[in-house]
Amino acid sequence: MADPRFFRSAGPFSLAEIAEIADAELPAGCDADRLMHDVAPLDVAGSDDLSFFDNKRYATTFMASRAGACIAEPAYVERAPEGMVVLSTPKPYRAYARVAARFYPEQVPSSSHHHTAVVDASARIGADCALAAYVVIGANAEVGAGCVIGAGTVIADGVVIGGGTHIGSNATLSHCYVGRNCRIHSGVRIGSRGFGFAMEPEGFEDVPQLGRVMIGDNVEVGANSTIDRGAGPDTVIGNGSKIDNLVQIGHNVKVGGSCVLVAQSGIAGSATLEDYVAVGGQSGIGGHITLGRGSNVAASSGVMRDVPAGQTVGGLPAILLKDYFRLCALWQRQLKAKGKRDE
Amino acid sequence: MADPRFFRSAGPFSLAEIAEIADAELPAGCDADRLMHDVAPLDVAGSDDLSFFDNKRYATTFMASRAGACIAEPAYVERAPEGMVVLSTPKPYRAYARVAARFYPEQVPSSSHHHTAVVDASARIGADCALAAYVVIGANAEVGAGCVIGAGTVIADGVVIGGGTHIGSNATLSHCYVGRNCRIHSGVRIGSRGFGFAMEPEGFEDVPQLGRVMIGDNVEVGANSTIDRGAGPDTVIGNGSKIDNLVQIGHNVKVGGSCVLVAQSGIAGSATLEDYVAVGGQSGIGGHITLGRGSNVAASSGVMRDVPAGQTVGGLPAILLKDYFRLCALWQRQLKAKGKRDE
Amino acid sequence: MADPRFFRSAGPFSLAEIAEIADAELPAGCDADRLMHDVAPLDVAGSDDLSFFDNKRYATTFMASRAGACIAEPAYVERAPEGMVVLSTPKPYRAYARVAARFYPEQVPSSSHHHTAVVDASARIGADCALAAYVVIGANAEVGAGCVIGAGTVIADGVVIGGGTHIGSNATLSHCYVGRNCRIHSGVRIGSRGFGFAMEPEGFEDVPQLGRVMIGDNVEVGANSTIDRGAGPDTVIGNGSKIDNLVQIGHNVKVGGSCVLVAQSGIAGSATLEDYVAVGGQSGIGGHITLGRGSNVAASSGVMRDVPAGQTVGGLPAILLKDYFRLCALWQRQLKAKGKRDE
Repeated sequence: MADPRFFRSAGPFSLAEIAEIADAELPAGCDADRLMHDVAPLDVAGSDDLSFFDNKRYATTFMASRAGACIAEPAYVERAPEGMVVLSTPKPYRAYARVAARFYPEQVPSSSHHHTAVVDASARIGADCALAAYVVIGANAEVGAGCVIGAGTVIADGVVIGGGTHIGSNATLSHCYVGRNCRIHSGVRIGSRGFGFAMEPEGFEDVPQLGRVMIGDNVEVGANSTIDRGAGPDTVIGNGSKIDNLVQIGHNVKVGGSCVLVAQSGIAGSATLEDYVAVGGQSGIGGHITLGRGSNVAASSGVMRDVPAGQTVGGLPAILLKDYFRLCALWQRQLKAKGKRDE
Repeated sequence: MADPRFFRSAGPFSLAEIAEIADAELPAGCDADRLMHDVAPLDVAGSDDLSFFDNKRYATTFMASRAGACIAEPAYVERAPEGMVVLSTPKPYRAYARVAARFYPEQVPSSSHHHTAVVDASARIGADCALAAYVVIGANAEVGAGCVIGAGTVIADGVVIGGGTHIGSNATLSHCYVGRNCRIHSGVRIGSRGFGFAMEPEGFEDVPQLGRVMIGDNVEVGANSTIDRGAGPDTVIGNGSKIDNLVQIGHNVKVGGSCVLVAQSGIAGSATLEDYVAVGGQSGIGGHITLGRGSNVAASSGVMRDVPAGQTVGGLPAILLKDYFRLCALWQRQLKAKGKRDE
Repeated sequence: MADPRFFRSAGPFSLAEIAEIADAELPAGCDADRLMHDVAPLDVAGSDDLSFFDNKRYATTFMASRAGACIAEPAYVERAPEGMVVLSTPKPYRAYARVAARFYPEQVPSSSHHHTAVVDASARIGADCALAAYVVIGANAEVGAGCVIGAGTVIADGVVIGGGTHIGSNATLSHCYVGRNCRIHSGVRIGSRGFGFAMEPEGFEDVPQLGRVMIGDNVEVGANSTIDRGAGPDTVIGNGSKIDNLVQIGHNVKVGGSCVLVAQSGIAGSATLEDYVAVGGQSGIGGHITLGRGSNVAASSGVMRDVPAGQTVGGLPAILLKDYFRLCALWQRQLKAKGKRDE
């Protein structure tokens, strides 16, 4: 059960309620009024718990689970262990997401401005915001209704934040517009000056970075990630994109809608990611490169040229991922052949 | 035009003034009194805007631009679109940097100590400093004249900061001397204990880290980067070096003058970078390695041995970059040959 | 000598005292009452300083050193320069660690709660804690005796911290239990929501992250590192593990005891590191992968499948490190052969 120190349950829910939330089907003849008291992972769930089974890697765990009920694909109804009620749906992970969110609705601190928050008189703060201790909000900043700003976070002069956006603690936002219902985690830095300078024999000369960071709605930015402001054009993050922890986004980068940037990935200046692009962990995208709509970059890769829409690339330098795998197989054979020659 | 929420223009300037600032040549017979009201990128600039053209990749954009004036190399004077005045110079990017800095001088908060700043009585703060809300400055720290310290930044006991240095918000500095006119961005951590410990079967034993971080003048350190203090020797960053976001610099590292470390690069303990070394994004330099003066490391590389002065290396492990490119070509041919055999 | 701005010496100590602390042997007939006034690196130590020699790479420096005394392996007693007293031990680095820790004991701020610390009335703070300025501690949090919490650090509701743990400044801890005697450096983010969401054509749907972060005793977490809380299972860090700067640890990861994660390494969600695993700088471990007990991952590697206990792997994708080195040698030969063909 989720630790009550940190989470508050809104349960229990009956199987009928859960089936409705999950848009899943209950088996004929099951007791639809039976209550599930909690959600839990397959391996620890008991008879009062709802679990879910999505990743085939865990089929053995599923079949040994003591969960009272489990959300799974229809094909698994028959393979369920005795005593488990399967709520079947073609999308178990999404269904679980919705049920878990009903059991544990996001906890939002009640509306309040902590007396230590330093808010400039010219800033406009919407209704029902929660400003924690030691928040600093600069001149002419605008914070929409229902925002949550964590302790020690600094919102610099002029920044605009849409309604319903939550920002963690000790973050810094400057030179940016942030959309509605975003989740900006702790330690994020948005709007620092881009890494732009003219290199001259006598030293570097900074180029003023006169753009902004424009972040759409429903964007998530992970802990300690950094997004620099543009040099003249803006740096842009499209609606619904998900950015993990410790990600770097350089100046002038355009990230489309519904993109996914996994932890420690980095996008160099002036690169463009069209909609639905996914970049794996620790991968780097070179400057001025375009990743086409729906393209994918495997983890630990380095992309040095444009990637067409829909393509999946990987390796260093990144090539078609299936070619990269063929290359790896080739290397294995060369190694084996060499081993034989050496004998 | 740069968003007036965040930037204040000192313009307009006449073409004659701009030519002087840029050290560029105006075409014979042009109206030198004509005013440029703003700077703007090629693709959005209008007839009252000054733009610049430096990266050949954008030649088409240059030729289609409606900018009233543009800084470019002399060779492009003739290729400019109708109605565009070209200010010619062999160094358009530097010239633009200077003009843009005149249009938008760095905004410095006026001198003041916010009443919530906690400054130890023994600390010495120079004239004309701006200390923002919730700044903490420890015992015997020294901050030179004209420094700007952002909200929530912590300057630990004994730290020395030279005049004219600006530090962002929520940064932490300890065990360090920082030079004059540096730019330390938000969330930077300078002076944490180096990652030094003796590995014993019964556990690890920390080795006291008794060195400092010594940072020269005009150094830039990007958001959320980390620079550990030395173990006994110091960690050193030379004058004028540029460090991007999320860069890691281990204990005892010596970075020379005018080096460039691009985002997410990492320098392991006791490595030495001589002057004018450039390290690409996400590249790693192994411990105790020396990169000779003016050497370059391509992005996404892993350097495992010394690099002679002036050499450019890349790949994993990094070799001469041109050899790495030959290797990539070789792999492509092997893949193709394999494809044919497989048919 | 360690800079007195930052370090306070408890010396001098006699050679006899040092030999005892170091568990090292003094040469027959040496003056055991002779005082060493400081510890110093080989190249700068003088006749009143104790140094140590451990890394063979620095043998020349050892032989030219003017240190009055030096901790080294027995084999080096005879190669010591004239005038240097060698304290011999099979483990010079550990011995030095102990002596240096006696010369410079960790400085702990005296017990105090700064008047600006915002501590919820329901939080329980143990005896002899030092809470710096602008610390924020939430409802029902528990902080053990003798903890040190740096300026601007935020301890969220319900967090539990064991006795003797030190936390740097501007860090954020939520949804976690931290053990005893840990060292959590500045800017660390523990307990952010894991990067879990269902990907649907119509957008992403967040999956509630209902687990915690469970950190053992004597764990070190480097500056600006991030450790996400589990999705349902917990994220776990075992006793005595050492995590460097800018490391990312995803949700549900299990890190065993006495592991070492070097700077900028990243562990993707649900991976397992058994005890005594070492991961090199900038290396990435894929999701759901297991690294067996005592396995090692070379720097700059990408691990895409399980690694058996005791194995050392490297490269991208990571294979047995010795195979990777053979592969590199093969590439070198292929390049050379190609060069000849091209002539």
